[in-house]
Amino acid sequence: MKLYIGNKNYSSWSMRAGVLLAAFGIPFDEVKLRLDYGNPASDWHRVIAAITPTKQVPVLVEDDGFAVWDTLAITEFVADRHPELPIWPRDAKARARARSLCAEMHAGFTRLRTVCPMNIEAFFPEVGAKLWAEDEVLRANVARLEAAWADALQASGGPFLFGAFSAADAFFAPVAIRLSRYGLPVSDTAAAYRDALLAHPAVEDWIADALREQDFLAHTEPYRQSR
Amino acid sequence: MKLYIGNKNYSSWSMRAGVLLAAFGIPFDEVKLRLDYGNPASDWHRVIAAITPTKQVPVLVEDDGFAVWDTLAITEFVADRHPELPIWPRDAKARARARSLCAEMHAGFTRLRTVCPMNIEAFFPEVGAKLWAEDEVLRANVARLEAAWADALQASGGPFLFGAFSAADAFFAPVAIRLSRYGLPVSDTAAAYRDALLAHPAVEDWIADALREQDFLAHTEPYRQSR
Repeated sequence: MKLYIGNKNYSSWSMRAGVLLAAFGIPFDEVKLRLDYGNPASDWHRVIAAITPTKQVPVLVEDDGFAVWDTLAITEFVADRHPELPIWPRDAKARARARSLCAEMHAGFTRLRTVCPMNIEAFFPEVGAKLWAEDEVLRANVARLEAAWADALQASGGPFLFGAFSAADAFFAPVAIRLSRYGLPVSDTAAAYRDALLAHPAVEDWIADALREQDFLAHTEPYRQSR
Repeated sequence: MKLYIGNKNYSSWSMRAGVLLAAFGIPFDEVKLRLDYGNPASDWHRVIAAITPTKQVPVLVEDDGFAVWDTLAITEFVADRHPELPIWPRDAKARARARSLCAEMHAGFTRLRTVCPMNIEAFFPEVGAKLWAEDEVLRANVARLEAAWADALQASGGPFLFGAFSAADAFFAPVAIRLSRYGLPVSDTAAAYRDALLAHPAVEDWIADALREQDFLAHTEPYRQSR
């Protein structure tokens, strides 16, 4: 099967799906599409419309052309197909809680996602400090993250949210990037989890690929004029 | 177990979870909280903070106090617990597609949800006609709905998206209400599916309960001054 993704440097949803598949050793071919929304003649527009009606990445496409879109649906699809892999925690309550957290990430943390877009190669500590001082909603987003992580880590004992690496950790990997790149202040517990995420081999590989891209897409760069 | 919900007239996410459980005959006690956000001393604020960190409904609470929040996580939780029930379609590809559509609903169709808030007891055909004429993004949301529904209905033969009623239909039940109450124009195929949803016994029961509420919450009423 193929996983269509966007720029590794920018596309947080692509990262979630790519890291998940890699972390569990599920074989796939990666097809990267530059997120070139502004150019109607771009590969992006030509390719994406042919594979998914939502025109969003990531999309998992089977050999027969069947497309699974949305990261949460991709996650459930591979968990369904690979019951031998602990993509979700084995314990029923931990599994339910992992799904609640992924669903929260899926539709929430809007301010964090908006004002701190993922940009793996760039560090914005001054932007982060200014946002942190001025943006109460951002602080509330991070406070909720801290509480959710602390609850799960306390129950499991860590190092990942539910002990071993699961889908929930893949969902928060781009958040670890944001906390790191914008230098947002977090508790020691959250910092340790952030660093565990950043040191996971599947996350490290993604970051290394992102750093090699050296691309610049102005539409997702509120804080830089160029590289 | 208990399902905490908001006003049946207004709370579209509560409706999805409540209709799902009812449609599959899963027993639960319903606990309704008036969505009285504006009053810090309200039951809403007193109760919700004690049962869920997200302070949102619906929340499913087990007898031992364990809380499952977010409608998508609740759906997977009951599907996990009741493998004998076809909450998701039995066919693997249909199941994947159902999850893609639910995920799309979960994080998308933002304009439709914003400008046409659910209000079961009220009919706004003039508002709907004006929005339809002026709002290109709303029309695009509805066009995507039409395409998604048509694809699924054609593959399954209907009457519901994947043949028999599934979680995907519960997710679109509030959309059927919106199309109906705002009089948004849709194809014959979409209209037939909308009407099949509105005539499902679990949806009919929800609507009947909503009509008995006769409550008015100004914060979710952009188009009325009073009942």
